[in-house]
Amino acid sequence: MSEFSFIDWIRRRVRDRPPVLLGIGDDAAMLTPSDRPLLVTTDMLMEGTDFTFPETTPELAGRKSLAVNLSDIAAMGGTPTAAFISVALPKQSPTLARHDVNPPSSREFAERFFTGLLDLAEDFGVVVAGGDTNTWDGPLVANITLLGHPLKSAPITRSGARPGDKIFVTGELGHSIHGHHLTFTPRVREARQLLDLVVIHAMIDISDGLAADLHHILAASGVGAVLDADKIPIRPIDRTTGPLELGSDRALAHALSDGEDFELLFTVSGQDGERLRQTWSGTTRLSCIGEVTSETGCRLSHAGQTTILPALGWVHAL
Amino acid sequence: MSEFSFIDWIRRRVRDRPPVLLGIGDDAAMLTPSDRPLLVTTDMLMEGTDFTFPETTPELAGRKSLAVNLSDIAAMGGTPTAAFISVALPKQSPTLARHDVNPPSSREFAERFFTGLLDLAEDFGVVVAGGDTNTWDGPLVANITLLGHPLKSAPITRSGARPGDKIFVTGELGHSIHGHHLTFTPRVREARQLLDLVVIHAMIDISDGLAADLHHILAASGVGAVLDADKIPIRPIDRTTGPLELGSDRALAHALSDGEDFELLFTVSGQDGERLRQTWSGTTRLSCIGEVTSETGCRLSHAGQTTILPALGWVHAL
Repeated sequence: MSEFSFIDWIRRRVRDRPPVLLGIGDDAAMLTPSDRPLLVTTDMLMEGTDFTFPETTPELAGRKSLAVNLSDIAAMGGTPTAAFISVALPKQSPTLARHDVNPPSSREFAERFFTGLLDLAEDFGVVVAGGDTNTWDGPLVANITLLGHPLKSAPITRSGARPGDKIFVTGELGHSIHGHHLTFTPRVREARQLLDLVVIHAMIDISDGLAADLHHILAASGVGAVLDADKIPIRPIDRTTGPLELGSDRALAHALSDGEDFELLFTVSGQDGERLRQTWSGTTRLSCIGEVTSETGCRLSHAGQTTILPALGWVHAL
Repeated sequence: MSEFSFIDWIRRRVRDRPPVLLGIGDDAAMLTPSDRPLLVTTDMLMEGTDFTFPETTPELAGRKSLAVNLSDIAAMGGTPTAAFISVALPKQSPTLARHDVNPPSSREFAERFFTGLLDLAEDFGVVVAGGDTNTWDGPLVANITLLGHPLKSAPITRSGARPGDKIFVTGELGHSIHGHHLTFTPRVREARQLLDLVVIHAMIDISDGLAADLHHILAASGVGAVLDADKIPIRPIDRTTGPLELGSDRALAHALSDGEDFELLFTVSGQDGERLRQTWSGTTRLSCIGEVTSETGCRLSHAGQTTILPALGWVHAL
């Protein structure tokens, strides 16, 4: 149901068939058996919700479609292997610059979308093994199903946090909407580095915001937490968008409440927390932002006061 | 990014966790390892292209979304195991009857869609193990990724047809648009029954039409074929849509050219063809419609004449 066979286009690009792939069939792909459990995640991204044009490029839309799935596999303590891509491509491409009267052809738009996606797949050793390419009168919709395997014998879940655990987060948080949600590096390598060093009790990738996703871990584990506001890593804001807010209460509120950071939020024992502080040599920033408590609920220690942190995030009274 | 958690709703419906599923994670599902290769197929269906409302029901839209994938796994000689469902649900449901001023709530619409899908999944022992539920201002988009395993050591492809092979097709062909494309039974059981009896050399499910899909087999196998028009099984047309055309040239043209029959088209050796004729006890009709030739191209023997059958199908001069 498509004018182009992007699967053929992809096949030509993927020259070296990786060992995971037995063959790209016409009706289905065939992957090699594995003695490890199979992780499967899937995400559908829609123009207007997950990206808009001309604010983003087709390459970044393709990139994000895969990146959010890579982030899910990383959050499970997994390594990704093969991706399956379905798209509904707009027959009439959106304009890619304001005041642009000549949008790209639908073919050029699609090739740029797949190029962004395949470049990221290559970076992470993921083979694009199948898909379904359609065109329609609607806006761009992309669905990716990503397969992988847990790096350890069992995947990491949200339910293993224990009282006394230290709470860590990778990278920096907040203001993802100013570009990070399109350009972020999924924390697949960091998950592997962490699992080589320590035993992770519970993990999630931050998609709904720090407060909301921490509450997901706490609810699943039946525990509570105390966060230290001063320790929460704040993403520096591009100066062109306004005065630098680092350290301000508004910046803290964004770090707690904004979504799509796609950083790893996880808990480890006190001993492993100490080990991470002493031995972490990854280039990605790692911050210990609080501690798990047996008392349920989440509290935020900030400016000498302790307040309740709701799941919707903390909003400073202006 | 959704008001409802249909994964939770599905989890409640699927009471007995099948052995294939180790767990439905929050970020990814985990399936048991298998020593058999893994088949993966994915299809995206869009309102306006693959189904329209009110001509169809939400249940049938959900059913078709899974059925087309089941048909792909059957065509590979496989057995399906687990499905992953992504949807973009319309915030404003379409009306489900002409002159209906009260469309169902988006929640009711979604539940009916998933009910149709899950009923078919249950029929075929497929576990719905994950997905991504979204709502948006656009029309319904559904993507399913279906996993499975080949029934034999290797899956059936399109490229194994050999000169002298007999060409078979299940069921009846043509006029799928009058309802069959929504209500068809994917030929998963028939594929299993066939593989118990014979060695299938090449197979495909008819989605583009008999002529087009036969050409796919012939091109992949580097062979040709002669079809006997009188042997092609024609779907009886509902009398309400017009005079019964069985046996007419127009009915033959529809059987050759219409798409979405989702019947199995396959080739076997002459000996196995004879075995099928003598021992086939399935309730589904099985027809031997021609023979594979070393000479490439496809010819149609019809009314005492032999004509070239193009991939686009045969159109009788009116």
